[in-house]
Amino acid sequence: MRRPDGKLDEEKVFKDPVHRYIHVRDELIWKLIGTKEFQRLRRIRQLGTTFLTFHGAEHTRFNHSLGVYEVMRRMIGNLEKKSEWDPEERLVCLASALLHDVGHGPFSHSFEKVFHMDHEKWTRRIILGNTEINDILLQMGDDFPAKVANVIAKTYDNKLLVSLISSQIDADRMDYLLRDAFYTGVSYGQFDMERILRVMRPQEDQAVFKHSGMHAVEDYIMSRYQMYWQVYFHPVTRSAEVILSKILHRAKELLADNYAFKINPVHFTTMFEGEVTLKDYLKLDESIILYYFQAWEEEEDPILSDLCQRFMNRRLFKYVECDPSKQMLIWPELQQLFKTIGLNPEYYLVIDSSSDLPYDFYRPGEKDERVPIHLLMPNGELSELSRQSDVVEAISGKKRTDHKLYFPKDLLTDQTTFPEEKRRILSLLMNQEG
Amino acid sequence: MRRPDGKLDEEKVFKDPVHRYIHVRDELIWKLIGTKEFQRLRRIRQLGTTFLTFHGAEHTRFNHSLGVYEVMRRMIGNLEKKSEWDPEERLVCLASALLHDVGHGPFSHSFEKVFHMDHEKWTRRIILGNTEINDILLQMGDDFPAKVANVIAKTYDNKLLVSLISSQIDADRMDYLLRDAFYTGVSYGQFDMERILRVMRPQEDQAVFKHSGMHAVEDYIMSRYQMYWQVYFHPVTRSAEVILSKILHRAKELLADNYAFKINPVHFTTMFEGEVTLKDYLKLDESIILYYFQAWEEEEDPILSDLCQRFMNRRLFKYVECDPSKQMLIWPELQQLFKTIGLNPEYYLVIDSSSDLPYDFYRPGEKDERVPIHLLMPNGELSELSRQSDVVEAISGKKRTDHKLYFPKDLLTDQTTFPEEKRRILSLLMNQEG
Amino acid sequence: MRRPDGKLDEEKVFKDPVHRYIHVRDELIWKLIGTKEFQRLRRIRQLGTTFLTFHGAEHTRFNHSLGVYEVMRRMIGNLEKKSEWDPEERLVCLASALLHDVGHGPFSHSFEKVFHMDHEKWTRRIILGNTEINDILLQMGDDFPAKVANVIAKTYDNKLLVSLISSQIDADRMDYLLRDAFYTGVSYGQFDMERILRVMRPQEDQAVFKHSGMHAVEDYIMSRYQMYWQVYFHPVTRSAEVILSKILHRAKELLADNYAFKINPVHFTTMFEGEVTLKDYLKLDESIILYYFQAWEEEEDPILSDLCQRFMNRRLFKYVECDPSKQMLIWPELQQLFKTIGLNPEYYLVIDSSSDLPYDFYRPGEKDERVPIHLLMPNGELSELSRQSDVVEAISGKKRTDHKLYFPKDLLTDQTTFPEEKRRILSLLMNQEG
Amino acid sequence: MRRPDGKLDEEKVFKDPVHRYIHVRDELIWKLIGTKEFQRLRRIRQLGTTFLTFHGAEHTRFNHSLGVYEVMRRMIGNLEKKSEWDPEERLVCLASALLHDVGHGPFSHSFEKVFHMDHEKWTRRIILGNTEINDILLQMGDDFPAKVANVIAKTYDNKLLVSLISSQIDADRMDYLLRDAFYTGVSYGQFDMERILRVMRPQEDQAVFKHSGMHAVEDYIMSRYQMYWQVYFHPVTRSAEVILSKILHRAKELLADNYAFKINPVHFTTMFEGEVTLKDYLKLDESIILYYFQAWEEEEDPILSDLCQRFMNRRLFKYVECDPSKQMLIWPELQQLFKTIGLNPEYYLVIDSSSDLPYDFYRPGEKDERVPIHLLMPNGELSELSRQSDVVEAISGKKRTDHKLYFPKDLLTDQTTFPEEKRRILSLLMNQEG
Repeated sequence: MRRPDGKLDEEKVFKDPVHRYIHVRDELIWKLIGTKEFQRLRRIRQLGTTFLTFHGAEHTRFNHSLGVYEVMRRMIGNLEKKSEWDPEERLVCLASALLHDVGHGPFSHSFEKVFHMDHEKWTRRIILGNTEINDILLQMGDDFPAKVANVIAKTYDNKLLVSLISSQIDADRMDYLLRDAFYTGVSYGQFDMERILRVMRPQEDQAVFKHSGMHAVEDYIMSRYQMYWQVYFHPVTRSAEVILSKILHRAKELLADNYAFKINPVHFTTMFEGEVTLKDYLKLDESIILYYFQAWEEEEDPILSDLCQRFMNRRLFKYVECDPSKQMLIWPELQQLFKTIGLNPEYYLVIDSSSDLPYDFYRPGEKDERVPIHLLMPNGELSELSRQSDVVEAISGKKRTDHKLYFPKDLLTDQTTFPEEKRRILSLLMNQEG
Repeated sequence: MRRPDGKLDEEKVFKDPVHRYIHVRDELIWKLIGTKEFQRLRRIRQLGTTFLTFHGAEHTRFNHSLGVYEVMRRMIGNLEKKSEWDPEERLVCLASALLHDVGHGPFSHSFEKVFHMDHEKWTRRIILGNTEINDILLQMGDDFPAKVANVIAKTYDNKLLVSLISSQIDADRMDYLLRDAFYTGVSYGQFDMERILRVMRPQEDQAVFKHSGMHAVEDYIMSRYQMYWQVYFHPVTRSAEVILSKILHRAKELLADNYAFKINPVHFTTMFEGEVTLKDYLKLDESIILYYFQAWEEEEDPILSDLCQRFMNRRLFKYVECDPSKQMLIWPELQQLFKTIGLNPEYYLVIDSSSDLPYDFYRPGEKDERVPIHLLMPNGELSELSRQSDVVEAISGKKRTDHKLYFPKDLLTDQTTFPEEKRRILSLLMNQEG
Repeated sequence: MRRPDGKLDEEKVFKDPVHRYIHVRDELIWKLIGTKEFQRLRRIRQLGTTFLTFHGAEHTRFNHSLGVYEVMRRMIGNLEKKSEWDPEERLVCLASALLHDVGHGPFSHSFEKVFHMDHEKWTRRIILGNTEINDILLQMGDDFPAKVANVIAKTYDNKLLVSLISSQIDADRMDYLLRDAFYTGVSYGQFDMERILRVMRPQEDQAVFKHSGMHAVEDYIMSRYQMYWQVYFHPVTRSAEVILSKILHRAKELLADNYAFKINPVHFTTMFEGEVTLKDYLKLDESIILYYFQAWEEEEDPILSDLCQRFMNRRLFKYVECDPSKQMLIWPELQQLFKTIGLNPEYYLVIDSSSDLPYDFYRPGEKDERVPIHLLMPNGELSELSRQSDVVEAISGKKRTDHKLYFPKDLLTDQTTFPEEKRRILSLLMNQEG
Repeated sequence: MRRPDGKLDEEKVFKDPVHRYIHVRDELIWKLIGTKEFQRLRRIRQLGTTFLTFHGAEHTRFNHSLGVYEVMRRMIGNLEKKSEWDPEERLVCLASALLHDVGHGPFSHSFEKVFHMDHEKWTRRIILGNTEINDILLQMGDDFPAKVANVIAKTYDNKLLVSLISSQIDADRMDYLLRDAFYTGVSYGQFDMERILRVMRPQEDQAVFKHSGMHAVEDYIMSRYQMYWQVYFHPVTRSAEVILSKILHRAKELLADNYAFKINPVHFTTMFEGEVTLKDYLKLDESIILYYFQAWEEEEDPILSDLCQRFMNRRLFKYVECDPSKQMLIWPELQQLFKTIGLNPEYYLVIDSSSDLPYDFYRPGEKDERVPIHLLMPNGELSELSRQSDVVEAISGKKRTDHKLYFPKDLLTDQTTFPEEKRRILSLLMNQEG
């Protein structure tokens, strides 16, 4: 760092449509933003296939990562007024906020499922491995990269600091709710972040919220609830996800079968072979994926080519609601009918289930156990949020699951071939819904 | 069309962060949006390299095209209250608004310069050629595609209609000013579109504006002026443009030299050979370009590889203001010095000039002559805007040009080699600015 | 009306910060706005004493009434696309929306309590009595005023129309939630009105909402819930209300005692005597009330003068939470102590209770029974909102009540007199809160 | 002050719709807000009669004064990063910002004209006289009230500090442009205040602005220009002003004539007699004025009663543009005609002229000479704004004046009496305009 205090000679400012300005005063942060691993996030959309439903949602993980950093910077600014902060801990915290998503690949959700990858593991490898990011973190001390990685992995000693980045109300979620609402144009994600930051009070293990700010926190939980079902789990977005996953699945299958691709899909070969190097991983971005999808539209394999043109031209599958108990009864017949009319049901008849737990109090011993949000009451005691808020209580711990059955309706309504079978399929599917 | 009136059974709605909702009632429009040529616009950013300056500006031409359509729909809605509209003319107008940018390729500005292409010509070919768009337009009548193409080319008979899409205050500009301001987060692009639409009055050749709405129009002109210099001509954006153009230039040169690329750049070969087919052109999008740029980072050619990693990792050129009259004096020496230190000045020492004419009254006989904006005065007469508005008068007809000299400062400050020459270069460049 | 269709020659437009523009096309509406009874609403604040808590909330009932009219106009515009509307019914509906609050007096809540008045009765008298409003309504037909009065009284035949103005989701509530949120500056009152209006479907007795818009309706209910507790029942606002009521109470008592006021309070005398004429009532506005309050600051009566200076200079009572069951135990002692130190407990020790029922399904036979909100399900059936929405279910039918005890803390902390008693009082009060 | 550092134990926060939150950390400021002289500003609207044109503009000087304080607080926060600030100077500055308008009376503009009062003199008297404000200021030191008064009077030694409150770009103007735009609902007043504050740099005599922020400053000047002509000088607002002034004028005349008012106008008597005490002045607020206006609607004097009902019921005068040179020719005839038909031209035929100088560079020796805005250029030199900005140059130093002739058109169109004279009057007036 050029100055002993690690500050820039002149503050850098980014114009941001959500937080108005993003302020960078630390040379460390400025340099991290400039690394190629961080710049790569410009080529990975924040909301995957959501732009096919909400055309405004074309923003990238770069955009969001700067936002999380800024929320954290303001959060620390508020907490510093209430308690002492070690300057190094402050930088650990800011760097973790900035880098928490750096391991994400293109369309992570589908990729991870098909290729058994884990973006959190990649985040760790990027921070600790041979990268520009690692070089810069090392300038702060030998153990600095590990500290940042541990915060993101939630294994860091300072639990308060961990909670600022990963908890039920953290810098990450606050930024993405506001940002995704802004870019999609929906009004659901709005809440009063400024007020929430002002009522935060540091405790040993986590930040708590002054009781007087309960309604702002309540509003945040409701925003989260609304955004999940209105935006994140929108059935059209999931249709695009289904197709995307099936493309990857098909490519993997063809690779296994030594299918002769017209263009050698080098970026996929390594993934298929299981041993992806850091260098290879960092080459993956949405441009690469879309390049292949465009090329594959002209492949011989009819499934790969059909699915790719569907994704590129937004010719998505339609869906019906699907009750898993009923569905079993018709599943064998449906699958058989699909085969009869020449559609492989593995690719063209797909159940997708989404479920969300908008807020949870502590259920020890369970997987994904969550630290609850606590309010600081006027008498100085802590009280778990759902005990104070009727509306949060109403949705606490209630997992809601939604099942949908996706299929290419366009192929079924063209009744020049197999009219009877297609009518039967449509009738079975429509009955599902009622 | 399924219904005789061409209306959809149920109106379709897109959530849009700028106009809140985009409403589609006509089956024609709905089908055009679904074509693959139109969906391709999702892979072409509206503002080219601007996202490297304003990280929020990641929106695409798809996003903007829907916006222009919606502005036009509202504009017609207002004008229909004032005069009779032929239903077919209405659809010609809406389709033209939606499709006006459909011929754009990736980073059009640079591509057109280097490969001598013209997006307006491609728009015409897409509308009139063998495309899904053409198929759908033909359903409205044999001459319908030509009508739409003529509106966009400004050769259509109905001049009023042409002016709604291309004039100094049209649906295109109104949408992009609002939209680009929204996504960049700057406050400059705001103006009261609703008011402008309400004071529009149709005349034979163009729409004019009731005098009582002059200040809203004035505000629009000022927004335009501010956006050009604050956003569109931002020097950092231009730096990225300079690098992009030089990459394309280098690739073209290497192709001419039969350089052996590691990956055969098929998408470029056709362009280089001059005869691009419609099918080839439609394959070009930003994913393809970025795929090559990533691949080229590993090419042997040091210039191509350096420029590509600069673009991908945002390691842009720095700039100094440049006075063309002074600059000539030092140009030979500078170029010589660049060669001495091993940097090809053709690629590493670049002058970029931007100029804008924010508003102009009629200057007949000149290139790019513009139809002025007219106000409808209380006495029923028309008066040209700059005669009524001091501030518009102040900027009318005044072309402002800005010259900047771009160069890789990072390579000059590393003084392990040629320290003297590099110091001399830096000194010459810095003197430029004073 | 000048034109046979009752339309204005040129549409009139009001700039409105909440709905952007308010459009008036009907001469009837334009003339009603111009009446002196409607203009009087400019002198009555929408939120009574709330401006003493949220300084932004200085808007009047005039402001809100225009807003309700505009929401109704847009609502009808949407409904007209779905079903036929009788033009006269349309005007009945618009006039009712505009005039629904016209009987409100200054600080209605307190006035009605102390002087046993009823603004709904006054609305009826203004519409049916000898007023400019009545004259203008009569121009539409002899029974027109009665129709409007009946809609507002909810006794009109057309129940659908009544429900648009008075139901759990009506034009009145939609405007005030948005408007009060705008002027106070809180973020809670936001919801997507445009979407709600678009999913409204007329039924015989009321409007229902397409299931696909459920989340927008849910969001509206939550806004309502948040606004009640964050804004409308804010304890500081209620403190000002308490003082205001006590001033009126004191004035009434002094009038009964034939107290010799320095200035004869003619505007109050009639109210006191019980028989208020329409002409007298229309003279009451906030200026008149504040004029007296200022004058009364200099009255001999120490209670009246103290309370008035408290109200004018915002020297409000403080409060403690108050548990009615506990409170009874200390009440006799507290009252006695107040008397000892020379404070009349009737005026200086006041319990205020607020309670709200944010949403209710139908509970026949109960007072204030409410028509529930119904969703129109995809299968064409209706379903009550709380059956579909977890969060609405959580707050449905749950009346929440909050009790607070208000007192002049400033007089108790000055311990130059009765130090022991005052300490005892403060100790009793603080224990309340426990 | 309770704490030696003068800080509150807990920061106080006001929710503000314009600046989101207003933060008070200094006990001095908190106590000043609580004084009765400051609370009185809640009863004086910020924009006088503008609410009769823009119904949203019902906000008071209390509202604005808090805003100016908040802008100043942020301004100082930014400047403190650039230079040392004496803590006392900081408080002088904040107190001056808060109190700069405290001497305003109701509808100041008209009052000052008719009764020869000067709100700046009253501000001084309130700060230095026997008031709660003076008591609190004295707690900071004997000379503290004088310091604050001198800053407001622009006679304070520290010219930088004076310029923050009164210059062509100061905390007062920045707040009112944003605030008045917010409440009226117009879009013209928007500019990027955050950016302007960030590019401010303290100099000895005034704050200057970094050149890189020029466009934000330019945008501010344009906002100012637009707000003046779109809002502040709106002809309907001026019509209400004209009537208001004429009411005051008539009352004064009647007082001089010993007219027997039904209610003794005590609040006016002192003003009329010339010697207004501070105590009397502080009693004047809009409630008092409107109380009298309502009472005077029933006075015998036909002019007073007519004008009062016009103001209360918004039955304003209409206007024609008026060219002073032409107007002289018809003036004698017009006046005579008015007398003939029984209308006193002194009250019913009124010319109102408004003029504005949106920005000015230095013109030494002239009245109202203004300190120009300076930019800090990259080379460290200062440059006057209009030399750098074409648009500011265009409007610099150009005084624009607008003359309108107001008259009661309603009385002239009723042609049951004097039909010929009235037709002649209308014809003369309409010809004016052409």
